[in-house]
Amino acid sequence: MNAADPPIDLLDGIATTRSIRRYTDDPVPEGALRDICFAATRAPSGSNRQSFRFIVLTNGSVASEAKQLIAGAARSIWANKRSADGYDQAQNAGGEEGENETSTRRSTTSAKDRLARSMDEYVARIDKVPALIFPCLIRHRAPTSTEGASVYPAMQNMLLAARALGFGGVTTMWHLLVEDELRSLLHIPADVFIAATLTLGRPAGGHGPVRRRPLSHFVYDGVWGQTPAWAVDPPGTPHTGLPPAR
Amino acid sequence: MNAADPPIDLLDGIATTRSIRRYTDDPVPEGALRDICFAATRAPSGSNRQSFRFIVLTNGSVASEAKQLIAGAARSIWANKRSADGYDQAQNAGGEEGENETSTRRSTTSAKDRLARSMDEYVARIDKVPALIFPCLIRHRAPTSTEGASVYPAMQNMLLAARALGFGGVTTMWHLLVEDELRSLLHIPADVFIAATLTLGRPAGGHGPVRRRPLSHFVYDGVWGQTPAWAVDPPGTPHTGLPPAR
Repeated sequence: MNAADPPIDLLDGIATTRSIRRYTDDPVPEGALRDICFAATRAPSGSNRQSFRFIVLTNGSVASEAKQLIAGAARSIWANKRSADGYDQAQNAGGEEGENETSTRRSTTSAKDRLARSMDEYVARIDKVPALIFPCLIRHRAPTSTEGASVYPAMQNMLLAARALGFGGVTTMWHLLVEDELRSLLHIPADVFIAATLTLGRPAGGHGPVRRRPLSHFVYDGVWGQTPAWAVDPPGTPHTGLPPAR
Repeated sequence: MNAADPPIDLLDGIATTRSIRRYTDDPVPEGALRDICFAATRAPSGSNRQSFRFIVLTNGSVASEAKQLIAGAARSIWANKRSADGYDQAQNAGGEEGENETSTRRSTTSAKDRLARSMDEYVARIDKVPALIFPCLIRHRAPTSTEGASVYPAMQNMLLAARALGFGGVTTMWHLLVEDELRSLLHIPADVFIAATLTLGRPAGGHGPVRRRPLSHFVYDGVWGQTPAWAVDPPGTPHTGLPPAR
């Protein structure tokens, strides 16, 4: 495989892979798509059944039509979410949530405002994404919550491998709004679970670090809610501005 | 974070992380558990809601009881699967499936036979696993197939980080058989989805390479079933002995 130059350490790569929604117009070369898909297939799956599949769309009329379908869904879903989840208010009250941030590089705009702007730009240009990928799973039984264990690890490998090769991506569930049209366009059988909508490209502009709540929020020692003393982030880890949700 | 010595390249790490079911008696130190959990929390989740949680069990009476519960489930489920899925026959007819293998290091025992032996040993010693982790997800709506997108990427990061630190693990769904008992023992709320059973430790003995079907089997170019010319494994990639399932 093509290693990054310079190569990225495994732990560092995991720690620095963030959602990328702004891309240059550069295509994702076939060699990179190959390495990204190869990485995906190294992931585990239930009974090593390897029922994950990856539909890759770049150029051509089918890809263009699929991107248009996703663009329509994205614009509709994001417009609703922007209004329903209070992103519009956040943009008017920029900085408010930033007060809670413990980042060493505190921004003057709030985390929610930054996300809203990033999403605006993303959906405006999503019909132009260099690569659109649908990670899928061929079902062998009725749908379950656990079936994702056989496809989402592969999806995560794709995002990490993209990072290693100088690309970036983000996953959404926008296909759900146009699933029938996509199944028809891409000839996806009825027993196949379309697990996500993944867009990939070369990152454009600046991107902040990965931000999460403090590690102590996520880790329990034996019993639910009981945080171990060792669950402490590395020094300097920037945290999300969102207040802890219980 | 503690880097491996020597550090492992991101793409190489992804390509060489395989399920590890045999562990030495070494504990997984708290520093390694911290780094593994930190890696998990870098994963994306729906709307960056960060509702994944990780229950980590190592020593003490609660951990011991949880390991016993999982051991009971594992032995029961594996005994049934061994019989129902023909693993017993595979062991008697060792080598048969190996005929289909395209590995450059063809084994004299079949892939199915190897897995059966590995599983036998795993379940026999599973109450002694150094670390038992339950990746969980706090639900904010009714269960869906896509909710796994908010917890299984984090689980994959755990397995990759373990690899980076010289540990290894494997995920199963064995908790499903003893879910009520685990919820009671670990005080897991009703709205929490227990996503998997993950065991971790330092690998013991030899472990073969990651084996999958050829890349062309997994990747479609635009339309379902249409393989792109670029979907070719790196030279020397060992393949699984299983015949392609459509």
